[in-house]
Amino acid sequence: MADIKKFQELLSQLKEYKPTNLANNDFLLTWEKSIDDLKTVIQVSQILRFLRENNISPRTFDSGLAISIFRDKSTRTRFSFTSASDMLGLQVIDFDEKKTQITHGETVRETMNMISFMTEAIGIRDDMFLGYGHQYMLDVAHALDEGYEKGVLPQRPRLVNLQCDLDHPTQAMADLQHLVNYFGGFDKLKGKKLVMSWAYSPSYAKPLSVPQGIIALMTRLGMDVTLAYPEGYDLVPEVVDIAKQNAQQTGASFQITHSMEEAFKDADIVYPKSWAPFNIMVERTKLLKEGNAKGLDELEQQALEQNAKHKDWTTTNELMKLTRNGSGLYMHCLPADITGVSCEHGEVDADVFERYRIETYKEASYKPYIIAAMMLTSKFDDPVALLEQLFERGQSRVII
Amino acid sequence: MADIKKFQELLSQLKEYKPTNLANNDFLLTWEKSIDDLKTVIQVSQILRFLRENNISPRTFDSGLAISIFRDKSTRTRFSFTSASDMLGLQVIDFDEKKTQITHGETVRETMNMISFMTEAIGIRDDMFLGYGHQYMLDVAHALDEGYEKGVLPQRPRLVNLQCDLDHPTQAMADLQHLVNYFGGFDKLKGKKLVMSWAYSPSYAKPLSVPQGIIALMTRLGMDVTLAYPEGYDLVPEVVDIAKQNAQQTGASFQITHSMEEAFKDADIVYPKSWAPFNIMVERTKLLKEGNAKGLDELEQQALEQNAKHKDWTTTNELMKLTRNGSGLYMHCLPADITGVSCEHGEVDADVFERYRIETYKEASYKPYIIAAMMLTSKFDDPVALLEQLFERGQSRVII
Amino acid sequence: MADIKKFQELLSQLKEYKPTNLANNDFLLTWEKSIDDLKTVIQVSQILRFLRENNISPRTFDSGLAISIFRDKSTRTRFSFTSASDMLGLQVIDFDEKKTQITHGETVRETMNMISFMTEAIGIRDDMFLGYGHQYMLDVAHALDEGYEKGVLPQRPRLVNLQCDLDHPTQAMADLQHLVNYFGGFDKLKGKKLVMSWAYSPSYAKPLSVPQGIIALMTRLGMDVTLAYPEGYDLVPEVVDIAKQNAQQTGASFQITHSMEEAFKDADIVYPKSWAPFNIMVERTKLLKEGNAKGLDELEQQALEQNAKHKDWTTTNELMKLTRNGSGLYMHCLPADITGVSCEHGEVDADVFERYRIETYKEASYKPYIIAAMMLTSKFDDPVALLEQLFERGQSRVII
Repeated sequence: MADIKKFQELLSQLKEYKPTNLANNDFLLTWEKSIDDLKTVIQVSQILRFLRENNISPRTFDSGLAISIFRDKSTRTRFSFTSASDMLGLQVIDFDEKKTQITHGETVRETMNMISFMTEAIGIRDDMFLGYGHQYMLDVAHALDEGYEKGVLPQRPRLVNLQCDLDHPTQAMADLQHLVNYFGGFDKLKGKKLVMSWAYSPSYAKPLSVPQGIIALMTRLGMDVTLAYPEGYDLVPEVVDIAKQNAQQTGASFQITHSMEEAFKDADIVYPKSWAPFNIMVERTKLLKEGNAKGLDELEQQALEQNAKHKDWTTTNELMKLTRNGSGLYMHCLPADITGVSCEHGEVDADVFERYRIETYKEASYKPYIIAAMMLTSKFDDPVALLEQLFERGQSRVII
Repeated sequence: MADIKKFQELLSQLKEYKPTNLANNDFLLTWEKSIDDLKTVIQVSQILRFLRENNISPRTFDSGLAISIFRDKSTRTRFSFTSASDMLGLQVIDFDEKKTQITHGETVRETMNMISFMTEAIGIRDDMFLGYGHQYMLDVAHALDEGYEKGVLPQRPRLVNLQCDLDHPTQAMADLQHLVNYFGGFDKLKGKKLVMSWAYSPSYAKPLSVPQGIIALMTRLGMDVTLAYPEGYDLVPEVVDIAKQNAQQTGASFQITHSMEEAFKDADIVYPKSWAPFNIMVERTKLLKEGNAKGLDELEQQALEQNAKHKDWTTTNELMKLTRNGSGLYMHCLPADITGVSCEHGEVDADVFERYRIETYKEASYKPYIIAAMMLTSKFDDPVALLEQLFERGQSRVII
Repeated sequence: MADIKKFQELLSQLKEYKPTNLANNDFLLTWEKSIDDLKTVIQVSQILRFLRENNISPRTFDSGLAISIFRDKSTRTRFSFTSASDMLGLQVIDFDEKKTQITHGETVRETMNMISFMTEAIGIRDDMFLGYGHQYMLDVAHALDEGYEKGVLPQRPRLVNLQCDLDHPTQAMADLQHLVNYFGGFDKLKGKKLVMSWAYSPSYAKPLSVPQGIIALMTRLGMDVTLAYPEGYDLVPEVVDIAKQNAQQTGASFQITHSMEEAFKDADIVYPKSWAPFNIMVERTKLLKEGNAKGLDELEQQALEQNAKHKDWTTTNELMKLTRNGSGLYMHCLPADITGVSCEHGEVDADVFERYRIETYKEASYKPYIIAAMMLTSKFDDPVALLEQLFERGQSRVII
C-alpha cells in the first residue's frame, strides 16, 4: 500500500501554492506563468511520480487523443510525450506535416480544428526558425480558441510547448525538478550559483531554447545565474532581458561572462552545452525563407569554422575542480557531445561525463511527469482535488 | 449528470428504425443499406455524441485493434478514424503498404488474416483507381469471411469504407447528420432542393466519390437533388442511375444541368466541389496500370487545360443570392480551394466561404461519430440495448 | 459465461511446471530457458487465448508503453506485437532508427534509458547481420539493467526477441503451440519425426533464424528432427551443436541429410523453407560493414545463381506422399514462395500449399498470445496467481 502520510505531505505542500495562469491556459513560456504556477506544476509532477511508483494509476481520461507535432526530429521528447499521454489515458497520434515549413495561417486555422474533435492535448516542437516557433503555437492556440468558442470543439485541447525558438519549458522544468530533489527543496535553491555555459560542438545550428529556458527559469527561483559564452554567441535579446528582470525581482544576480573558467568558479551547478550564435540563426532563417540553398551551405561552413575557434570551451576535470568544493553538479539535456566518445572534440570530457552520467539520466526522467503535470494543470481548475480523487480511487496501474 | 429525459428521447427515436443490413455486415456503400439502416447509423452517431458531451464514456472494448489502410494520403480522415476507434476503446495501427498499387489477390487473402487476429475494425481508403477501390474492399471482406468461418479469426473485423471509387459513405453520412441537425430532423429534409455542383479547381484528378456519395444518399431522403457540371464532367454512370432510381422510389426529383446559375436557383443547400471527369479517370487508370508515365503527364496537362476553360464555375455571392431567400446552406467536405486564399482561382470566393466556414467545420465534426456508429452497428445486433448499457454504466470519460 | 471447469483444467496443467528462468528475465533464446520455462510460456499462451475467446479481458496494465524496434521490415510481427501489447493494456510506440546500422554501444546505453521511463516491454527484430542481432539485444539488456539498478527506471522493461541472427523464439514457440494443439499435447510430440528442410526461393539472404529456432526447440520436446539442405547451405554451427545436444538429452534423434526425399520419408511434420547459406551471410555481414556496395551486388548475384541450381528442392505432392501415411503436416512461417502464385518457381507447389493454407494461418494465430505470454511470465513471479486473478476479476473484453 502507498504511504498515505507521504501522500498527504506532498499534497499539503501543493495546497500552499495559488496558481493563477494554469487552468484553461496553454503552457508555452515559463515567463508567462506565476511562480506559484511553476511550483504547482513541479509539485503535481512529484505527486504523479509518487502515485505511479506506488502503483496507483493516474489515468484521468477513459479515452481521448493527444497529438504530437514535431516540426523537427525527435526521439526522446516523443517518448516522454507518449509516456505522459498514455499515463493519463490518452492515445497518441502524430500529426506529420512531412516537412518543416512556415505554414500558411489559413491552413493552421482549419487543420487544427479538423484534428481536434476528440483531442485533449497537443504537444508541439517547432524550434527551427527564430521568430516562428512561438508564433506557430500562438496561431494554433487562436485556431483552437475559435473552434471551441463557436461550438466546433467540445473541449479545448491544451498546448504543451515541447520546444520553440524562445523557450524549452518541459526541459527547463524537468531540470528544475531535478534540482529541487537534488538539493532538497525550492528553498534550498535560493543563492545557489548556476552556470549556463556555451560549449564546443562539431555540429551546427543547435537551438537556443535550452540556454534561454534555463536562464529565464532559474532566475525565478532566486538562483545566481551566470551565462557564459564566447563573444558573438548571444542569445535572443528579449529572453536575456527577461532573465535580467527576473533576477532583479527575486534579488538574485544575473551575469554574463566570456570566460568559462571565471564562470565555473564556485558554481553549485554547471550546464555546459552548445548553441548557435543568434546572428547566425537570424541569417539562417532569412536564407531558409528565401530557399537559398547555396547561402545556407556557406553559412553552415562559416558557422562551423567559427565554432572551431572555440574548441577550448569544453568541460574538463580542471574546470570542474573550480566549482564549489570541486563538487558542483553537472547537468545536460542530452545527448551530449562527449570528447573521444561521440565525437573527436566535444562539449565535455569523457571522464567528467561518466561521473555524472547517471545523474543526467535521472534529470531526464522527470520529463514525462512534467508534461503530464502541464496537461493536468491546464485541464483541471483544482489539481489538489484531482490528485486526492486519484489517490482515493486507488486503481492499480499494474494488477497485483 | 446527463439529462436522462433527453437520452430517452434520443433512444426512443432510435427504436423506431428496423435495421436489416447493419449487424454482421461491412459498411461499404450507402445504397446497399436500407433507409432504416442509414437512419440507425445517424441516430447512433447522435447518441454517441450526446454521451460523450455529457462525459459518459462510450468505451465498448477493453482492448482490441482498429486498423487503418490509407492507399491515398489523408490527415483528416485518419484523425476521425483514430478518434472513433479510441472512443470505443480500440488501439489504432496503420497498415502501410508503402505505395498505392493494385495488389495481388493472394497477398490480400493472407495478409488480411495475419493482421486481424485481434482486430475489431478496419477502415480503408482506396479512391485512386476507378474500378478498383470498391473491389479491393470486397477482396478484403472475402478474405476475412474465410478466416472467420474457418476458425482462424476469433472475431470478424468489420470494414468501414473511408472512401472508394464509388462512394464516400463516412463523408456523405456526416453531411446528412449535419443537415438533420441544421434543418431539425429527417422529415424536414423531404422536398428540400440540394445542388451538387462541380466547381473549378486548379488541381487535377480529384475523386468522384464525394459527388457520387451525395447524389446517391440525399435522394434516399426525398430531397430534390440537382447535379450540375460542365459537359464532359460526368460521374460513374452506374451511380447516377442509382440516384435516379432512388429519386423515383422516394418521389423526389433528380436532375442534371450544365448551368451553375440554373442549379442554384431556389436551392436550399449547395455543395460546389471540384472533381475529375469520368473519362479522364478511366484513361488515367489505364495509363497507371500500364505504368505509362509520359501518358500520365500528357493526360494531366490535358485535364488541367480542360478545367481551366471552366473558371467561371465558382461559388460567388451573386450565385448564393439565387438560392432560396438568398440564404441557402453552403456545404463542403474540406479543404476547399478558396479564391485568393488557397489559390488564385478556386471553387469558392473568400467572402462566401468565410460566411459558412464555421458551418463547414461543424459539418466535419460529425465524422468521428459516424465512423464509431458504423463500427458499433456492424458489431452489435441490438444497438439500443448497447447504448442503454453504456448510459447505465455511466463511466466518466474524464474523471471529475 | 466462461467454462470454469475448462479454466481450472488449463490452470492445473500450468501448475505442474516449475519455471526457473522466466520471471525477471528477458526472452532471447529458447535454449537459455528450461523445459518447464518453455511449457509455462506455451500454457500461459493457451490460457490467455481461452480467456480472450471467452470475453474475459487479460488487461494487466492500466497504462504503460510497449516499444517495438524493427531493424528490418515487418508487417506480421508488428501486428502480433501490437496485438499482444494492446491485449495487456500497453500502448505501442515504434522506435524507428531510420536505417539498419550496427549502432554505437554508447548510444544504445543512453537511448534505451531515455525511452524506457514508463516502458514495460521492448520487442526487437534484428536479424540482418550474423553476429550482431543477439549481441544488440544483450547491449540493450545491459543498458536497462544499469538504469534499473541505479534508480533511473522505476521498472525494468523486459525484452522479447522478435527475431535475431540466432533464434526466432516467438515463431518457434507459436509453431510449438500449433503442434501441441494439432497432436493433442506435449506428450504426443515425443518421437514424432519433424523435418526442417531447405527449399528453393528466388529471393536472397533470407535469415537463418527460423530453421535454427525450429531445430533447437523441437529437439527439446523429444521429437526426431531431421535437417535437410543442399550441401553448402549450413546453419550457424553453434546452434546446430545445441540441437545435437538437446537430442542427446531428450533421447531423440537429430540428423542432417542432403536429400529432400530421404528427409520426407515417414515424416509426421515437414517445414520446407528457404534460407541463405551461412558462409554467404558471413561474407555479406563483412561487406555491409565495409560499405562495399559493389561487393554486395556481386554476392547477391552469386547467391541467386547458387540457389537456382536447387530448384528441385520444392515441396511437391509426390514428396508429401512420402510422409507418414501420406498425411504429414505441412508448416510454414509465412509468407511462402508458392510456385505459379507468388513466383515462377518457389518453395512449395500451389496445390500442396492450398491444402494446408488454413492450417498455416492457424499456426500464425498463436503468435500474439505467445508474445503476451512471454511478456507476462517475464514480469510476474507467479503466472498462476495472475491468471486466477484475471479470471476472477472477469472484466469483459467486449461489453455485452
